[in-house]
Amino acid sequence: MFVVDTYTPTRVVFGPGRLNDLATMELPGKKALLCVMGDGLMEKLGIQGRVLELLKKNGVETVIYDKIIVNPVQTDVMNAAELAKKEGCDFVIGLGGGGSVDTAKAVAIMMRNPGILWDYASTGTGSRKPVKEAAPVVTISTTSGTGTETDPYCVITNEATQEKLDFAVDPIYPVLSFIDPELMLTLPRSLTLYQGFDALFHVSECYISNENSNRLLDVYSREAVEVISKWLPVVAQDGNNLEARTWMAYAADILGGYTQAIVNTTSHHIIAQTIGGMFPGVTHGLSLLFIAEAYYKKVKALRPQLLDDLGEFMGIKADPADPGQGFVTALTELMERTGVRHLPMSEYGIKPEDFRRIVDLTVDNTGIEWEKYTLTKDDIMDILKESYC
Amino acid sequence: MFVVDTYTPTRVVFGPGRLNDLATMELPGKKALLCVMGDGLMEKLGIQGRVLELLKKNGVETVIYDKIIVNPVQTDVMNAAELAKKEGCDFVIGLGGGGSVDTAKAVAIMMRNPGILWDYASTGTGSRKPVKEAAPVVTISTTSGTGTETDPYCVITNEATQEKLDFAVDPIYPVLSFIDPELMLTLPRSLTLYQGFDALFHVSECYISNENSNRLLDVYSREAVEVISKWLPVVAQDGNNLEARTWMAYAADILGGYTQAIVNTTSHHIIAQTIGGMFPGVTHGLSLLFIAEAYYKKVKALRPQLLDDLGEFMGIKADPADPGQGFVTALTELMERTGVRHLPMSEYGIKPEDFRRIVDLTVDNTGIEWEKYTLTKDDIMDILKESYC
Repeated sequence: MFVVDTYTPTRVVFGPGRLNDLATMELPGKKALLCVMGDGLMEKLGIQGRVLELLKKNGVETVIYDKIIVNPVQTDVMNAAELAKKEGCDFVIGLGGGGSVDTAKAVAIMMRNPGILWDYASTGTGSRKPVKEAAPVVTISTTSGTGTETDPYCVITNEATQEKLDFAVDPIYPVLSFIDPELMLTLPRSLTLYQGFDALFHVSECYISNENSNRLLDVYSREAVEVISKWLPVVAQDGNNLEARTWMAYAADILGGYTQAIVNTTSHHIIAQTIGGMFPGVTHGLSLLFIAEAYYKKVKALRPQLLDDLGEFMGIKADPADPGQGFVTALTELMERTGVRHLPMSEYGIKPEDFRRIVDLTVDNTGIEWEKYTLTKDDIMDILKESYC
Repeated sequence: MFVVDTYTPTRVVFGPGRLNDLATMELPGKKALLCVMGDGLMEKLGIQGRVLELLKKNGVETVIYDKIIVNPVQTDVMNAAELAKKEGCDFVIGLGGGGSVDTAKAVAIMMRNPGILWDYASTGTGSRKPVKEAAPVVTISTTSGTGTETDPYCVITNEATQEKLDFAVDPIYPVLSFIDPELMLTLPRSLTLYQGFDALFHVSECYISNENSNRLLDVYSREAVEVISKWLPVVAQDGNNLEARTWMAYAADILGGYTQAIVNTTSHHIIAQTIGGMFPGVTHGLSLLFIAEAYYKKVKALRPQLLDDLGEFMGIKADPADPGQGFVTALTELMERTGVRHLPMSEYGIKPEDFRRIVDLTVDNTGIEWEKYTLTKDDIMDILKESYC
């Protein structure tokens, strides 16, 4: 029998031009800490100024923390939380991609709890303390990838230990998320692709993780896989296509979050996060793409039917003589078509002698997911070796 | 372009046997007012005793209000709220079908707001005061119909004015809903059918109301229509089929609530509610069935494509020569097959001379929905006359 446990409490404001609602909607406080990346892009694009103005119209004061880096780190979380407390902020806004939003979510934890963030990490070297509350989180997305807009996760790196870990606690579900595809039109082609594939992997990993036969998860993942395989090539060709941006935002930022709110992703994500923790210049989607083909070849025997389902959602008929190959074929075709197959990890400073540490950290940092897939350390080593170029 | 605004904050605990989680899950208070029907059925079936025991295990005290009737009334809401306040209850639980759950939601409003319920009604003779807060609501469903488990609505009748009105305010979204199909196994055939069709009408009315092209609404309604048209005949044949009960609970209590959380139902529901307000012995699903066939024949020219979509979800190919007929055909076949076509409203005390008042009250009690469908008073009169038998 199936179950349908679900909890998706975020209020979603979605559609082209909808950022304007920031001026009029009820917000969860009167003084916000606004988290943005340190690259100055939000300011350059005029988005940051527009957000400040809309907040002002809504009677909200804003304090800015703008030092966040691509793979966001504990140090920035602690500094931003200290600033928020000193300035008397009562909620936090993440503006930008997964990095700023995830930082905002981690800051929300530290605005209401003592100690350091790693006290609350539940895997790796974390102290596994429970998180009972957090400051309210609002998100304003400029990318379509992580699903953090509607899920209870944030992913933060501990610079000292090189761990890049998930924090998954209910109090950091955003209370309100603005998903306005117009803000995504300027996203460069490479990032659009990395994030689009990240979104595809979220929903496909959740689909093959669905041990409890959660029917709603099947519905969300199928819809998302169909949408992404249709619209990602379109948006890769023309980043200004607002319709394509809208579909991708829907699949990644709503459905991707909803699926992850129900079940965890698989070891594909954990290996990729380990790479991101060790090599902070490698963006998340890129690390997933490095290993994707070898990973799905390796796991296809473990979940053949589910991987063939995913292939069919993408238009590839299953081959009974080669069970599970459906998704591998569909995925490699999509990667080939969009020019992201065989991306060379060697050009990003990753060397074969780093593989042992990637394997060890991956296994140490995983909880329950690990056993599910029963990939051994040797399997992961094989995946990394086969992916290397 | 489509939008996907959505807000579904209820935590859903779903599946056979899941009521047991009531003993261990975090609840929103320490002392509950439990709302049940006055027919004593919950006690007879042992469900009420089991709920009290599970709550006790969880350290929660319970006060019982057990006078609720089929079409729940303002008097019971006010009496129950007074009891809750006198006893110091800090949350409210609705146990049973839509009647008890809707009463619990209205009681939640009156536990935190002054005056009488009708002060907060936003149509008809209501005083249209805003509802800013309500006590937390928990639901335990024993039926599959209304979707009230996951939506912001309750429907209450004012005995003095004979109005049966919707109250739709965010604070009454349940914080936690237990949907355990095992509790639905004893539901009699007639009620199973009335509620199953109620659920079908929720999602089909929402589907044809989808003016903003909310994609998520399309996804939910399609899934629900497919599930209901497959499983309702099965559960009508064998009420003890737990798999069928599980599918129906998923479609009605989760998807039905999610669709109504996004958009209102149509005038089909408003006419039926008016009948229920004037004739308290007529259960909600029954009043919908009385007029369904004539209603969809009348509106099919207004939304032909959407009604043909619904027909196709139910396995009926659209006929280009008769646009919109697809759903009418699929619906009448399903009603015929389950023995609920041509139910005689005359046997429930409804006479042709009541039609004028039904028409007038319906039009007075509708807000925005009304204009959308541009049904005139004459149209509604036609529907009632054609339905009469």
